[in-house]
Amino acid sequence: MAKSVRPAKATAKPATKPETEPKPWSGRFDEVTDELVEAYTSSVHTDAMFFAEDIEASIAHVRMLARQEIIGADEAKKIERGLDKIFGEFQRGEFVLRPELEDVHMNVETRLAELIGPVAGKLHTARSRNDQVATDFRLYVIESTRSAAMHLVALQQSLIELAEKNIDVIMPGYTHMQRAQPVLFAHHMLAYVQMFDRDLHRFLNAMEMMDELPLGSGALAGVPYKIDRQSVADELGFPRVTANSIDAVSDRDFVVDYLSAAALTMVHVSRLAEELVLWSSAEFGFITLPDAFATGSSIMPQKKNPDVAELARGRTGRAIGALVSMLVTLKGLPLAYNRDMQEDKPALLDAEATLLPTLEVIAAMLPRITVNAARMAIAASENYSLATDFADYLVRKGLPFRQAHEAVAKLVRHAEEKRVDLSDLSLADLRTFSPLFADDAREIDALSSISARDIVGGTAPNRVRAALQEARVRVDTMLAEAAAENDASTDDD
Amino acid sequence: MAKSVRPAKATAKPATKPETEPKPWSGRFDEVTDELVEAYTSSVHTDAMFFAEDIEASIAHVRMLARQEIIGADEAKKIERGLDKIFGEFQRGEFVLRPELEDVHMNVETRLAELIGPVAGKLHTARSRNDQVATDFRLYVIESTRSAAMHLVALQQSLIELAEKNIDVIMPGYTHMQRAQPVLFAHHMLAYVQMFDRDLHRFLNAMEMMDELPLGSGALAGVPYKIDRQSVADELGFPRVTANSIDAVSDRDFVVDYLSAAALTMVHVSRLAEELVLWSSAEFGFITLPDAFATGSSIMPQKKNPDVAELARGRTGRAIGALVSMLVTLKGLPLAYNRDMQEDKPALLDAEATLLPTLEVIAAMLPRITVNAARMAIAASENYSLATDFADYLVRKGLPFRQAHEAVAKLVRHAEEKRVDLSDLSLADLRTFSPLFADDAREIDALSSISARDIVGGTAPNRVRAALQEARVRVDTMLAEAAAENDASTDDD
Amino acid sequence: MAKSVRPAKATAKPATKPETEPKPWSGRFDEVTDELVEAYTSSVHTDAMFFAEDIEASIAHVRMLARQEIIGADEAKKIERGLDKIFGEFQRGEFVLRPELEDVHMNVETRLAELIGPVAGKLHTARSRNDQVATDFRLYVIESTRSAAMHLVALQQSLIELAEKNIDVIMPGYTHMQRAQPVLFAHHMLAYVQMFDRDLHRFLNAMEMMDELPLGSGALAGVPYKIDRQSVADELGFPRVTANSIDAVSDRDFVVDYLSAAALTMVHVSRLAEELVLWSSAEFGFITLPDAFATGSSIMPQKKNPDVAELARGRTGRAIGALVSMLVTLKGLPLAYNRDMQEDKPALLDAEATLLPTLEVIAAMLPRITVNAARMAIAASENYSLATDFADYLVRKGLPFRQAHEAVAKLVRHAEEKRVDLSDLSLADLRTFSPLFADDAREIDALSSISARDIVGGTAPNRVRAALQEARVRVDTMLAEAAAENDASTDDD
Amino acid sequence: MAKSVRPAKATAKPATKPETEPKPWSGRFDEVTDELVEAYTSSVHTDAMFFAEDIEASIAHVRMLARQEIIGADEAKKIERGLDKIFGEFQRGEFVLRPELEDVHMNVETRLAELIGPVAGKLHTARSRNDQVATDFRLYVIESTRSAAMHLVALQQSLIELAEKNIDVIMPGYTHMQRAQPVLFAHHMLAYVQMFDRDLHRFLNAMEMMDELPLGSGALAGVPYKIDRQSVADELGFPRVTANSIDAVSDRDFVVDYLSAAALTMVHVSRLAEELVLWSSAEFGFITLPDAFATGSSIMPQKKNPDVAELARGRTGRAIGALVSMLVTLKGLPLAYNRDMQEDKPALLDAEATLLPTLEVIAAMLPRITVNAARMAIAASENYSLATDFADYLVRKGLPFRQAHEAVAKLVRHAEEKRVDLSDLSLADLRTFSPLFADDAREIDALSSISARDIVGGTAPNRVRAALQEARVRVDTMLAEAAAENDASTDDD
Repeated sequence: MAKSVRPAKATAKPATKPETEPKPWSGRFDEVTDELVEAYTSSVHTDAMFFAEDIEASIAHVRMLARQEIIGADEAKKIERGLDKIFGEFQRGEFVLRPELEDVHMNVETRLAELIGPVAGKLHTARSRNDQVATDFRLYVIESTRSAAMHLVALQQSLIELAEKNIDVIMPGYTHMQRAQPVLFAHHMLAYVQMFDRDLHRFLNAMEMMDELPLGSGALAGVPYKIDRQSVADELGFPRVTANSIDAVSDRDFVVDYLSAAALTMVHVSRLAEELVLWSSAEFGFITLPDAFATGSSIMPQKKNPDVAELARGRTGRAIGALVSMLVTLKGLPLAYNRDMQEDKPALLDAEATLLPTLEVIAAMLPRITVNAARMAIAASENYSLATDFADYLVRKGLPFRQAHEAVAKLVRHAEEKRVDLSDLSLADLRTFSPLFADDAREIDALSSISARDIVGGTAPNRVRAALQEARVRVDTMLAEAAAENDASTDDD
Repeated sequence: MAKSVRPAKATAKPATKPETEPKPWSGRFDEVTDELVEAYTSSVHTDAMFFAEDIEASIAHVRMLARQEIIGADEAKKIERGLDKIFGEFQRGEFVLRPELEDVHMNVETRLAELIGPVAGKLHTARSRNDQVATDFRLYVIESTRSAAMHLVALQQSLIELAEKNIDVIMPGYTHMQRAQPVLFAHHMLAYVQMFDRDLHRFLNAMEMMDELPLGSGALAGVPYKIDRQSVADELGFPRVTANSIDAVSDRDFVVDYLSAAALTMVHVSRLAEELVLWSSAEFGFITLPDAFATGSSIMPQKKNPDVAELARGRTGRAIGALVSMLVTLKGLPLAYNRDMQEDKPALLDAEATLLPTLEVIAAMLPRITVNAARMAIAASENYSLATDFADYLVRKGLPFRQAHEAVAKLVRHAEEKRVDLSDLSLADLRTFSPLFADDAREIDALSSISARDIVGGTAPNRVRAALQEARVRVDTMLAEAAAENDASTDDD
Repeated sequence: MAKSVRPAKATAKPATKPETEPKPWSGRFDEVTDELVEAYTSSVHTDAMFFAEDIEASIAHVRMLARQEIIGADEAKKIERGLDKIFGEFQRGEFVLRPELEDVHMNVETRLAELIGPVAGKLHTARSRNDQVATDFRLYVIESTRSAAMHLVALQQSLIELAEKNIDVIMPGYTHMQRAQPVLFAHHMLAYVQMFDRDLHRFLNAMEMMDELPLGSGALAGVPYKIDRQSVADELGFPRVTANSIDAVSDRDFVVDYLSAAALTMVHVSRLAEELVLWSSAEFGFITLPDAFATGSSIMPQKKNPDVAELARGRTGRAIGALVSMLVTLKGLPLAYNRDMQEDKPALLDAEATLLPTLEVIAAMLPRITVNAARMAIAASENYSLATDFADYLVRKGLPFRQAHEAVAKLVRHAEEKRVDLSDLSLADLRTFSPLFADDAREIDALSSISARDIVGGTAPNRVRAALQEARVRVDTMLAEAAAENDASTDDD
Repeated sequence: MAKSVRPAKATAKPATKPETEPKPWSGRFDEVTDELVEAYTSSVHTDAMFFAEDIEASIAHVRMLARQEIIGADEAKKIERGLDKIFGEFQRGEFVLRPELEDVHMNVETRLAELIGPVAGKLHTARSRNDQVATDFRLYVIESTRSAAMHLVALQQSLIELAEKNIDVIMPGYTHMQRAQPVLFAHHMLAYVQMFDRDLHRFLNAMEMMDELPLGSGALAGVPYKIDRQSVADELGFPRVTANSIDAVSDRDFVVDYLSAAALTMVHVSRLAEELVLWSSAEFGFITLPDAFATGSSIMPQKKNPDVAELARGRTGRAIGALVSMLVTLKGLPLAYNRDMQEDKPALLDAEATLLPTLEVIAAMLPRITVNAARMAIAASENYSLATDFADYLVRKGLPFRQAHEAVAKLVRHAEEKRVDLSDLSLADLRTFSPLFADDAREIDALSSISARDIVGGTAPNRVRAALQEARVRVDTMLAEAAAENDASTDDD
């Protein structure tokens, strides 16, 4: 068997070509569209994602057209019933999207004409695909943003749970990957709670900015009908309408805002993931992953691999790539709509399919991690992690910090040469380096070290407990509110 | 002369090595730092940018230490006077940053010791370089963000001015770079006002998130002194303090937020720049650039090139590159501080040096552009740009939109074959394609087309005038407030 | 209908969970893998792409094991027959990849055990999934690279064909988007032939570097069996084997090389696409796209949009994004294999699915473009495009170039003020600006301008014809060789 | 002191404006260039980097003009002497680049006119800035590429030296950051030698592609003089001339090729750097960095930080950012030259200033690292790293691998529960899991494990020694050849 065993590279050419349907815009064209072109330009595979939004927005549009007497009330009813039927077909998996119809909008309109006849042609009154797709996709991205926000709250909850369960555990804090000073494990977890809280606010800020209705902007100039845009906005849940029709059809900032927030969130995840990988190594041994969240090796029987954390870390690349992809696509595009912008959908889908499962699987894993408290505690005391405390001790006895630092640095070097820890040195030894050392210097230990950092944001146990409690309340409140809102919106249906 | 004429590639090695100064942390080290390492790790070239912030934060810190009786009031005074003196030296260009002292903090501390003796060593009490640099750099980035915001307001003002000066000009609106429908030139400019307004809000959102004081977080765990962080925040103008010490020293989200906003702003600029380049081409001929904002060719005497717009478009790459650079640098870093994070400064500086001059030069150029109204007007009527209006005419006469679209598509094709425009066709001609055409169909022109789009966000003249007025008020108010605030803060000194 | 009409965001959770199969590595695990984890870590959806390669490599491996007497000849036969059968199932679409089996390798091995019993377990002798996946994926990427190369040759052929058909057409050459000097349209097309030829060489260089067999590297250290790696390489068509087992399983440079070449190729495509978009605008009117390669508007009946070129330009973002994605994923990974590297497959697939159809559809479109020679010719003479020729005329009469440039710049300004072209000026007029002008200055025209540039790489017709001829021969030869090779490899089977 | 202490943001406006010099192209312009524009468009700060190349190329050009009798021999001599003088001024630091003259070319030409009068104007005969800058910059990038290649060879040499010094050291090999199988430390180092060797070839491939002379392409169309391009190429050391004038002035692939190679090289460096950081942590303790290549902490006296490795890892972001920057800048640019392309220089400089010092400092550090052999050896035997060897033992006794794997997985689990290592188990214990275990199973240890992997690319000591020897010869040869070539080229002058 030679290399040619693999079938020739898949190309844009569809395997079979169905009977050709005239395009809605084919009136002035001589030739039918080339099959390569159909395959290359079709967006039906990504459009399917906002099928529901398309139907929803069309219904709101058509109701408004009737209210404004642009079309008849009975015509509107007919169209709405047709759309409902189509949505039913879609939900039951009976609606087949045909690539040769370019996009979801044309698929729906074509099916509508089959169902209700020429009156279907009135659905497109006072509307263009440009403002329609902008509307559908915004509805989709708003929901994605809400979903990302909720996943971030859930992830914070998991971090809090893990911190609460291990509230007394002391670990070495690191800088430059070197043991620096002891901290509470819960304090370390709360650092991530802070990061994800900023991410949450980034998504909420993005939501606030994107939450406006573009429909009514037409192809780019607005529409020559007495439409009532605000009433459509109200029906679709948008607080306001876009202010400029050209901008409305050429703006994809809402996608970029989502992608930026997703990329930075994934960077934060990658930092946590890196720590999980390190902590579950033989060298650290700080945590044990649950079997259900690890995998083995096909060749090495002893292996237990932190694949989830590794993949989460690796997929950060994909999220950053999606952001870059969108920024590049938009670069240098003249106004208003250009077909290039169709690429907003794969970029968003990529980022969404990277972000949400990552947040979900990490949130599920965290509370099931076993923290090896004893191992962490030992590591927190070894390797001169308390050296700063010795220096601060001297400062409290009156030495300027810089001199105290120097004295203790020499002390550390002395201990290193003797291969002992600072706590192993006698008072006499200590006093060789500074006469300010007294009996109470022997009381310096990891617990006294963390307890001394009793300031806002510090690792002292009382501070950490309070911060944890505050975070717990905040997160639980958000989840409760979201649940309540969800119930309410379900009732709405 | 061969290729070797060029001197060997510059490397990290400094030309001459000054007498070696002991490092503040050299107590436990045997060897002096290798020169390559000094050159490679030094950040003095970028640190100089926040020299003022470093002094400012040190003074606020030392005052607090005195208030909290952690150091003596006289010691604090001495230190503050020393710092003032150093800042004076810096402002007069007398302060030489020495690379072998690693960073600006150590340069200042070393100089302080020369000026006031060992008491200088007390400045570093209850502080680490980790929280110090986080503080200095935040102060810098906050100011950068404010500056970016103000530049965006100024750019909006220029767009508004250009729009106001050309309030009656009609141009072709484009989709797919094809003439689509007539729009007001002012409406087109207002689309950019919207974009830059979102950018402005992005910077303001970033500012709101970054505006908290990290000082007091120490190396990573907080400090074992009874410091008063909020009072330092108050003195430095931060509304709040950071909530978690580990996060505070490992967080560079504020840099990413700046870079994200800058990248998207530059993407918007690139779209405007692309249009300026196209519009000043022979083919479009829509605008004439002021000579003062164009350049010539060294070889082609007739050339007048839109270099400013081209460079603005090209520098979008640099802004996106800076964002990518920072995201990559942070990816996978364990907590807390790692030296990798020093790369935040070149990234920020790159983006800032790209963004601010770009916004400034474009804002200066726009009001001086000559708009060739006649050429735009002709283009707006040619090429069947009014076809949609013919279709909408038929809709108003009762035809469903889809059928109207089809009829007009055939009409356009007919006109194309006859090589005439729609306005050249007789009523009889029109009626061949639809009996609904009547005399009033001949009244369709560019002005009637734009006037008909009389909805929120549409291009009808009254709508555009109102939007322009609203934008003008908003922008003028912001600039007035900023000026007032600036006066107030200057009085403060 | 409220926003909740859309089903909750799809997550990593599979809809239904099949009966759990024990993992091949489950011997030391207590818990079964969490469903979220299975969905999150599974790569079966991307692995399917190299199913054929997996079978092919397994067969080569097992044959070698028999040759080396590591397993029995009959065992090898059994395994090979089993693998053949599985491949048949796959080709007939009967083979269902089960996500809970993690990857394609485990799916094949599991099925093999069903078919031939415990001897299937011998297939994994002297092999790990790490070197196996590296082998399969290399085979796939090598084929992708070859395919990209062939598509680039075909695209060059299309450019050549278009150039040949329009060999006499003169167009304005541009710098800064301003008309600069006349050039042959064919010369302009040959510029793209050069670009794509460099891209071709980039892919061929990448191929040369990636063409080595990693199999035999085991998990990371090599395998403790007397295997014969070169004979496997020979069978699979690799000229050499990898030199270091650790590198072999942790190296994904071959993916990065593909992605780099793809990104730059797409950047080149974006430049061509930008020109096609501009040239088909009303303002330029240089080309007419075939109807079969354009689309219309749902609202504007007159529109004929260059969607293919726009999408090609837009998809450049995706190709650059894929490259960034992979570089970020690899950044900072310790040796050897880490699960992060599984992300190599989506990145490659993204780039491949972007690149190949783009090259194919552009290649299909180009020869069908109508070049509007008259319009180009007029544009090539207008707007003082011949000014450089007037300057060079003066140089030939003895004036230093800089002074000649200045004289003609003033001449152009004079003509501009009079609103005439240089050819409209009388000799007397010309002589006002330089006494060196004589009768023969009136002979300067677009054709004399291009004919004068008769140097290697210049736009003189004889030079362009020769370059075109050379390119034609080169391309045809490559395609012929590829066809011959293809025939040969098919015979091989 | 309030925030306003910092001076207002630096903008594009130069502090003082020198007397205005007429631009070489100012003949047709009414207004002088705005100061903001001068600052914004000037490239003198980056152009200075190829001052030598500019002089060198001008001299080659002017000599050819004389040989071809396009200018007089005496004129050429005068110009050459003037250029030599200017280069002398530059080397002595006396040549001041004036930003208002736009670029280095105009600065040189202006100075030349001061020195030798109007004949200076003949230098620009048959040349445009477009082909001139393309030539200068290519000369620069070729030299950069050569330099990168040499640095990569030197880095390989350092890796080889470190490996040779520690030829017998056994360490645990890792996959998924979990101990997998023992390997030789030298084998691990050789994996990096492979990576950097591929990088080296990437730079050499780039060099091969970029090594052609663009001069003679004029503004974009070639020049109307009988120039001899090949003779200029010969003089400047280019093997060939570019084939298409339009491509020659719009091509920046050579920059992208450099940036791609630099980005991937830095990714490889980041992997090595990550390992150096981990290995020097307390948890691993595998290596000790030389004091001269580490830094301390301003607050924690015990710290010894691997800053060089951290910065190298962090600067990977900058290299990737530079690549993205260039790709984005080029995206969508129509032919031929556009001013956007001026951004090629900052991108290249950024990457070069990131790459070269990084390679240099790592190469200097590596040979001075202390490898803690004992600690590595212990780690290589612990944690069931030999489990695969137990499985392979059973395979050699006849068990299919999959069953052997399963048996040993259970064995590992049993040992884990008893908290012992496999070597602590009795033969009886072993035989509970498989009756195939015999006395010789007790001989399995780290050394037997690595010795068994005696295949091409495997970690067996004889294989590693041979690979090391081969690498040593290859690297030494390259350095010797480079040194010889360097001597030769110096003689040339």
